[in-house]
Amino acid sequence: MTPIPARIAAFRAHGADRYGVITDKGIADLTPEYGTRFRGLKEVIEAGALEEVIAAAEGRAPTFNVDEVDFLIPLANPEKLICIGVNFPDRNAEYKDGTTDAKSYPSMFIRFPRSFTGHGQPLIRPPESPQLDYEGEVVIVIGKAGRRIARENAYDHIAALTLCNEGTIRDWVRHAKFNVTQGKNWDRSGSIGPWLVPFRSADQLDDIELTTRVNGEVRQQDRTSRMMYDFRYIVNYVSTFCTLVPGDMIVCGTPTGAGARFDPPVWLKPGDVIEVEAEGIGTLRNGVEDEVC
Amino acid sequence: MTPIPARIAAFRAHGADRYGVITDKGIADLTPEYGTRFRGLKEVIEAGALEEVIAAAEGRAPTFNVDEVDFLIPLANPEKLICIGVNFPDRNAEYKDGTTDAKSYPSMFIRFPRSFTGHGQPLIRPPESPQLDYEGEVVIVIGKAGRRIARENAYDHIAALTLCNEGTIRDWVRHAKFNVTQGKNWDRSGSIGPWLVPFRSADQLDDIELTTRVNGEVRQQDRTSRMMYDFRYIVNYVSTFCTLVPGDMIVCGTPTGAGARFDPPVWLKPGDVIEVEAEGIGTLRNGVEDEVC
Repeated sequence: MTPIPARIAAFRAHGADRYGVITDKGIADLTPEYGTRFRGLKEVIEAGALEEVIAAAEGRAPTFNVDEVDFLIPLANPEKLICIGVNFPDRNAEYKDGTTDAKSYPSMFIRFPRSFTGHGQPLIRPPESPQLDYEGEVVIVIGKAGRRIARENAYDHIAALTLCNEGTIRDWVRHAKFNVTQGKNWDRSGSIGPWLVPFRSADQLDDIELTTRVNGEVRQQDRTSRMMYDFRYIVNYVSTFCTLVPGDMIVCGTPTGAGARFDPPVWLKPGDVIEVEAEGIGTLRNGVEDEVC
Repeated sequence: MTPIPARIAAFRAHGADRYGVITDKGIADLTPEYGTRFRGLKEVIEAGALEEVIAAAEGRAPTFNVDEVDFLIPLANPEKLICIGVNFPDRNAEYKDGTTDAKSYPSMFIRFPRSFTGHGQPLIRPPESPQLDYEGEVVIVIGKAGRRIARENAYDHIAALTLCNEGTIRDWVRHAKFNVTQGKNWDRSGSIGPWLVPFRSADQLDDIELTTRVNGEVRQQDRTSRMMYDFRYIVNYVSTFCTLVPGDMIVCGTPTGAGARFDPPVWLKPGDVIEVEAEGIGTLRNGVEDEVC
């Protein structure tokens, strides 16, 4: 693995939404210089200016300590936020439903950005259900628009990587016969972050380890090389039916080992700490809090 | 039924996106007066200014003829665009899958605005599938934010009504074992419009007739009073898991009679004209064109 090339985060500090580059010593806020040109990281990516903005931060003294800011979802308002369902071996068996999946297409659903919170913020367990569950996943962020993107060109359309805890209210996933929509869209039930890592080379995606820990215990661990539908396939398949545009985020599926697989199932509860880590991207860490209604 | 109270549309004319009120003689463009305050109808609704803007148009001479503008989706960028699945009697039987639905929750999925076009624009049939199908539906537009909205307050949160042809690529709906995402999100495969009608009274929703015609032949016809999950229920249920905000659109389900129900199925083809009509809202009309790739 190459070392982490750069990290750029969206965050809130001193009452304003900002973005900046993570350095060894803190965060170099880029909003004073670039904020009028690019309101947020979505606009940076739309302008193809991710590398320019990162380069501008080089050698700067940090503006904030990492622990004095509130991390936000890297892109607050992507046009699309698409999630891939079952995409690692054993996940079908895990949700044993007596059928075999002979079809060769991925299951997909959509989440609203509102269903996610940033790195370091609590996941919210609602009073309607105790079945809050984690799913650690790699996220690709589209940098270049395209329709019917060929496999071999897929990586040219990816601008950045990040991580997702694709938090789920498990019993609501099964409210309807088809479609998991309502179990996947509880406000702040999941998280995305901690930051964006610019995508510069295929080895940042092709075979990286993805791990989810709950209170330090490894619950999910697998390698992206074992994905049933790889990143190139996903970009090709999704762009068959819709135009991908800069800022679109695709959450690419989780390894076996969610809390629903335990017998009896083990759900997240206040006080738990969940970490989603991937080689070369970082560690997304969140606690859990009960919702105050 | 009360007469149509007012109609406000988004459209493109003379190279610019505009909005204005439909009069007997044409469209009174409101963009010159309000365009800087409210970029589009989403911003009008967010500001709670729908009635103000409509009142301002009263007595004005039309700026454009209806046939010289290109209608757009009324709200280009809603935060959420949620669709309710099976919601009229006989729809379950229509998609006979050998199971009974004992559960009492609606099936829901999400579409991206990009999957819709405006009134009068062609629906696009892609080269990947001949199975383009229609579904006529009533759309509610949220005007007031809320979470866990009680049934009895649900109508207070609705600002306006419109119509949807929830065009579907039927074979792609079944690509995956769960989730219809990829059959419901082909670029410009459906339409929303023709305009917004401000929601002022319960009788605009409670028992209106909804009809879909293809080339003049009635294919779907039912009344909203027969919906399995009524509008109040939908607002209550959706707002249980996510905060509804102004501009959110909920597409509330289609009567029996889509092209998939015929034996053999009858798909839409270039030259067809599909009309979705509802009492008090209007008629959404679209042709069909093959995609030019």
